[in-house]
Amino acid sequence: MITINKNYLDLEKSYLFTDIARKVNAFEKANPDKKVIRLGIGDVTLPLPQVCVDALKEGAEEMGNKETFRGYGPEQGYPFLRDIIAKCDFSDRGIDIDADDIFVSDGAKSDTGNILDIFGPNLKVAVGDPVYPVYLDTNIMAGNKDSIIKLPCTAETNFQPVPPSKPVDLIYLCSPNNPTGSVMDHETMQAWVDYALENKSLILFDAAYEAFISDDSPHSIYEVNGAKKCAIEFRSFSKKAGFTGVRCGYTVVPSDLTVTTENGSEIKLRELWNRRQTTKFNGVSYIVQKAAAAVYTPEGEKQCRENIEYYLRNASLIKEALEEVGYEVSGGKNAPYVWLSIPDGHTSWSFFDYLLENANVVTTPGSGFGACGEGYIRISSFGSYEDCVEAVERIKNLKA
Amino acid sequence: MITINKNYLDLEKSYLFTDIARKVNAFEKANPDKKVIRLGIGDVTLPLPQVCVDALKEGAEEMGNKETFRGYGPEQGYPFLRDIIAKCDFSDRGIDIDADDIFVSDGAKSDTGNILDIFGPNLKVAVGDPVYPVYLDTNIMAGNKDSIIKLPCTAETNFQPVPPSKPVDLIYLCSPNNPTGSVMDHETMQAWVDYALENKSLILFDAAYEAFISDDSPHSIYEVNGAKKCAIEFRSFSKKAGFTGVRCGYTVVPSDLTVTTENGSEIKLRELWNRRQTTKFNGVSYIVQKAAAAVYTPEGEKQCRENIEYYLRNASLIKEALEEVGYEVSGGKNAPYVWLSIPDGHTSWSFFDYLLENANVVTTPGSGFGACGEGYIRISSFGSYEDCVEAVERIKNLKA
Repeated sequence: MITINKNYLDLEKSYLFTDIARKVNAFEKANPDKKVIRLGIGDVTLPLPQVCVDALKEGAEEMGNKETFRGYGPEQGYPFLRDIIAKCDFSDRGIDIDADDIFVSDGAKSDTGNILDIFGPNLKVAVGDPVYPVYLDTNIMAGNKDSIIKLPCTAETNFQPVPPSKPVDLIYLCSPNNPTGSVMDHETMQAWVDYALENKSLILFDAAYEAFISDDSPHSIYEVNGAKKCAIEFRSFSKKAGFTGVRCGYTVVPSDLTVTTENGSEIKLRELWNRRQTTKFNGVSYIVQKAAAAVYTPEGEKQCRENIEYYLRNASLIKEALEEVGYEVSGGKNAPYVWLSIPDGHTSWSFFDYLLENANVVTTPGSGFGACGEGYIRISSFGSYEDCVEAVERIKNLKA
Repeated sequence: MITINKNYLDLEKSYLFTDIARKVNAFEKANPDKKVIRLGIGDVTLPLPQVCVDALKEGAEEMGNKETFRGYGPEQGYPFLRDIIAKCDFSDRGIDIDADDIFVSDGAKSDTGNILDIFGPNLKVAVGDPVYPVYLDTNIMAGNKDSIIKLPCTAETNFQPVPPSKPVDLIYLCSPNNPTGSVMDHETMQAWVDYALENKSLILFDAAYEAFISDDSPHSIYEVNGAKKCAIEFRSFSKKAGFTGVRCGYTVVPSDLTVTTENGSEIKLRELWNRRQTTKFNGVSYIVQKAAAAVYTPEGEKQCRENIEYYLRNASLIKEALEEVGYEVSGGKNAPYVWLSIPDGHTSWSFFDYLLENANVVTTPGSGFGACGEGYIRISSFGSYEDCVEAVERIKNLKA
């Protein structure tokens, strides 16, 4: 008789965005005259860069001609894309990453979930709190529920996790951070790498928001000494190039990354991940890979940069306006998210309600990302500039 | 300390297509004057139907405009695609499958691999022999290695597996079959469904080649009574519409499909798969889903049919020509693969070598798909018509 993966029964149903949608719908129904502004979402809104649109159309044309048609491609991605990634995202920034270390995929969410396939059971796993829920849920699915250690990301820790006092096996780091919008500097990142090397831990580094970095904070964990021996990095075109609906990302598994098996032999994680991907994945759409490669052309870099700057201008506007009227705010400088410390007497949800009802602005309650998110709300800068201007005006007026 | 999934160490390295490539390269190097014809591949060669090219280009345009841009879509697929699939592939054929039972993905390979995520450990798993290697490898990765039962697919069983005498938990069926090219009739399929219902087994039905069915054999396992209570079905646009490089497929998990958990409660597999997909997957590229939907327009159906007919004409040509000169041949009628019983005195590999050296035709040794494939070679009809004509002429001449 068939049995199920009973770890699935340990999962909590995720109501966060459902609850938000329900509340917003109810409010709109009761107040049809009010214009609600949505700053809750983590999804891009600007159209795809034109270089990517052109590349998609060219790719489609190629697929329609017998001479240029492409069937199955390499599961790891086409060399034309892996090579340009290795050059532009790493080599040009002084980081030595081989094209063979790069595995192109349909997105960072898939990879951060699927990566657990290659690891053993009952791992001690450290995640931040608040945190992107996928790290938690995929570990519960893998049976690691009782060995998850939550590292508080609070004002005291600059809204990033700090190394725990005891050894852990697997560490999830996300910088720039979702949801707190905080970014790690070299020193903090080096401390994590030193910890991982000392404790034989593996870091899973999620750099999905690296394109938003505006100061000299590291874009890649491999900018830090020793990281190639202890870290896997996840990258995404979702936020960098507006690919949330196009679907492309990549994962870096350096060949230096080895694990000692029970019988004492060393095995490269890159080989395991390669085996996982070649067995359970068939590569990314050729036309999508062509569009991803266009991101690295000079014109592509420029168009992507313009979109990022647009969102960063929104973030900066939100952050400064809120600070002006006395709110405590972090993030919003190297990330599309502003993390607002809510006034005394409110919970995350009550302040969410307050803003919805009085400013008609939708945000995301921080408690939805974990217990340490209580007391905060996340404000997204992915809306239009005009909406952001109006939203902050309304929030400011509440204080007047 | 991080540990690996030690089941990965039980995997055998897959050398089949590497070995073939090595032999073909060596032959071509030694015989630069000979024109080698490749009938080994399982990949389509005709360009994408024009309706799909147009849909991809339209989709790209939409993504380039602020008003029509689409970010994250539903992880399960857009309603416009799920609805048209439910209508054209099921309802129009008299099968009652709900759009909510359909999960759009980047391909059947991903889904047949990932589906094991939702099941418990140590399942008794039945697979055909010969078989598509992904079924085997993904079960080894999941720790089911020692409980895999191989069901011989021989001339006596019409090159399809038949129900075993003992109960099993999970059954992989593939019809039309890869590699044997054999198709199941209603009666055989009904016997499997009856077996599964009686033994509380779950059937994983791979219908990736259903578009090649040319007689009244069932396209879907749900054409058979009771299947909605015991079967998951995998479909693909790869062979139906030439999407091997575009990447789209779908999986049907009927809501009737339940499993009793240890504590005696019933759980719907659809809910588990939905949780798996929403947690570890972010949906298929919007433009790709648009292209998949175009397959179901009248013009799309016609263009796809023309491509299928082209490959089927090749298959028929190969089959008839080989039979004419006395070879025993099966498949090639409802499938793009011809399964040739090799002459006495040869092994699969020695006959592969014989054809390569003497007819300069590349095939696939049946033994590469499992022990019961020994004594056979697979010939693919995915090449050009002209190549197929020349290849069979050469093979016929060897007999002259």
